Amino acid sequence: MVATLSCPASTYFVRSCYMRENHDQLKQQVTGIRTNGSFRSPVKVETLSQTVSTSTTTLGQAVTIGENGLRQNIPTKKQLVDPHRQGLIIEGGVGYRQTVVIRSYEVGADKTATLESILNLLQETALNHVWMSGLLSDGFGATHGMVRNDLIWVVSRMQVLIDYYPIWGEVVEIDTWVGASGKNGMRRDWLIRSKATGHIFGRATSTWVMMNRKTRRLSKMPEEVRAEVAPWFIEKQAIKEDTHEKIVKLDKEAKYMNSDLKPKRSDLDMNQHVNNVKYVRWMLETIPDQILEGHQLSGITLEYRRECGSLDIVQSLCEPEDDEILDGVVEPDYCTNLLNGLSADILNGGGVLTCLEQSSLRYTHLLQIKGEKQNDEIVRGRTAWKRKIVTIPFST
Amino acid sequence: MVATLSCPASTYFVRSCYMRENHDQLKQQVTGIRTNGSFRSPVKVETLSQTVSTSTTTLGQAVTIGENGLRQNIPTKKQLVDPHRQGLIIEGGVGYRQTVVIRSYEVGADKTATLESILNLLQETALNHVWMSGLLSDGFGATHGMVRNDLIWVVSRMQVLIDYYPIWGEVVEIDTWVGASGKNGMRRDWLIRSKATGHIFGRATSTWVMMNRKTRRLSKMPEEVRAEVAPWFIEKQAIKEDTHEKIVKLDKEAKYMNSDLKPKRSDLDMNQHVNNVKYVRWMLETIPDQILEGHQLSGITLEYRRECGSLDIVQSLCEPEDDEILDGVVEPDYCTNLLNGLSADILNGGGVLTCLEQSSLRYTHLLQIKGEKQNDEIVRGRTAWKRKIVTIPFST
Repeated sequence: MVATLSCPASTYFVRSCYMRENHDQLKQQVTGIRTNGSFRSPVKVETLSQTVSTSTTTLGQAVTIGENGLRQNIPTKKQLVDPHRQGLIIEGGVGYRQTVVIRSYEVGADKTATLESILNLLQETALNHVWMSGLLSDGFGATHGMVRNDLIWVVSRMQVLIDYYPIWGEVVEIDTWVGASGKNGMRRDWLIRSKATGHIFGRATSTWVMMNRKTRRLSKMPEEVRAEVAPWFIEKQAIKEDTHEKIVKLDKEAKYMNSDLKPKRSDLDMNQHVNNVKYVRWMLETIPDQILEGHQLSGITLEYRRECGSLDIVQSLCEPEDDEILDGVVEPDYCTNLLNGLSADILNGGGVLTCLEQSSLRYTHLLQIKGEKQNDEIVRGRTAWKRKIVTIPFST
Repeated sequence: MVATLSCPASTYFVRSCYMRENHDQLKQQVTGIRTNGSFRSPVKVETLSQTVSTSTTTLGQAVTIGENGLRQNIPTKKQLVDPHRQGLIIEGGVGYRQTVVIRSYEVGADKTATLESILNLLQETALNHVWMSGLLSDGFGATHGMVRNDLIWVVSRMQVLIDYYPIWGEVVEIDTWVGASGKNGMRRDWLIRSKATGHIFGRATSTWVMMNRKTRRLSKMPEEVRAEVAPWFIEKQAIKEDTHEKIVKLDKEAKYMNSDLKPKRSDLDMNQHVNNVKYVRWMLETIPDQILEGHQLSGITLEYRRECGSLDIVQSLCEPEDDEILDGVVEPDYCTNLLNGLSADILNGGGVLTCLEQSSLRYTHLLQIKGEKQNDEIVRGRTAWKRKIVTIPFST
């Protein structure tokens, strides 16, 4: 089943690996961080304590700029904590948690984190999970076993649900872990949580398979790689009962269309492919501004079909699932005014809830590569949107 | 002089403020972090130590999602250390240092941090400097005194020099501090440094003035605001002998031009203006791909003239300062081959240095708003580029 999927050499390269540590190794991890065969003094969390000292050299010897290995310091053993990444291993040794502060440039005009920023942080925490595992090879998330077999991770499906968007300066925790998906696939899940209250802001799940780097064909998971990743698998799921409802394929009758989208140099990532986040931007930019201004994305599902190269010309199609005119556009301020208390008496009349229900919108999306004879699908998508309303959703 | 400048309501809002602490306050800062008038238990740096515990509530009481003040936790007193931002006050109490890890999505296809990422990190550290100072008001970097006077910071000039680009996973330290610039302006400088070796990767300096938020006219610095910011001023400069060589204004004879650039919703920042980083992207995208592929930006100077709104249509002009054909395009691999040792005998002949000098390129840039009668300048720029060559530039 999985092997028949056509998947892109995606930008969401995530892999997880495993190294059984014994007590001696654990002891080493506590006293020193192993870097490419030589020990350095432990990276002290206390380096952040108040001091006016100049920069300290944490490596025993100076590192030459040209030596990427030393500059990156990819761990060769499993690490339990990384003070610079503010990450630590959780879930009994197989999950990863990272604390992040929402930065000034990660928020949009409304001061809340953009979907793009959130997708970037999911990618970052996934890769840091692999980083901590000690078997990150050269490349964008492949294990040593995968590199030996010329394999890369490709994502076939991704779903993100966001209840609340973190704001500028907010401290959030992102948990991520992996599980089995069929015989040859891997599931990766995430939870985004307020550090201050523990409340869940968002959840995400994704499915991964392996592709041969040279033939670009999907591959079974070699036993060597299974031995690396399987010990990290757990059953826990961030999104329960994901029904995998099929996303219909749009055609040229779609209501909205952006054509002639061309990848730019800055859209390419370490794998020389158009970054996943760029896909999402192309998708969302077909939705009219008046919808985007009053709504916030509450859910997105992506089904990846093939990769997009730097020379491809892309078309973005979008179709509302319901009649968006009635629901969201004609009366953009009506519900907001109601809920802002301008018509507080109506709030008790039951009309508001109806208004809110009506105002959630759904769209189907398609990105495809424009071809001479036929168009090749890159990714199908579905998005759900809720009206932006200031609420106090829980009062624990 | 400064007051006659026409400046944009830029996106680089940075302000610095001051609160004279006494010993009691200092003691408070060590034992507890004051947040909006109530003390919470100190944010322990040790929270990153290995633990599988679930999320802890760092505030004594649960925080409701809707209350941005509590979610942001903007300090009301000067802070000396922020473990989540990995920041601390340096330079005898007036400068700020932040440790950052270069993230997977902050690098380009060559695995080095993009200029955009670096500009974003400069903005972030500047705002976090203000954050730590304890007088950050609502908005994008304005002090309480500025808010009372309806003033915002606008940037008039920015210069960034980058010798080495950090790579994916590299840990860097960014220092930032402020100084006086004329009678009514402020200078903000940055240093970007390898955490491992202390070597300097890049330097930046910028000039800021105040603008009335309503009249959009430049303003003198009120005494009330001077009292906030002046105690933070120091003389130190990241870039010495900045000669302020005037950037010529390009016209329609420029060699390269991108027209009809339209800001998108995602290009707007918290101030509803097109983000500064977007300006730079528009500038650099006029340079031909074959130049960008073989070169790395080593310096950029920006002179801001006016702000760009979401409805403006922008034109990006670019002119090489020298004959780029001779220097960079015709023989793209010649110098690289030489330096990779393929013709090692030539390395000793003195030809390589000449080759390197020739291969550095300079461009003049202009972004302007297309108008019916005349075009309004947004920003003039100058960029310098060096060929990408793997070198080991120091061997301490």
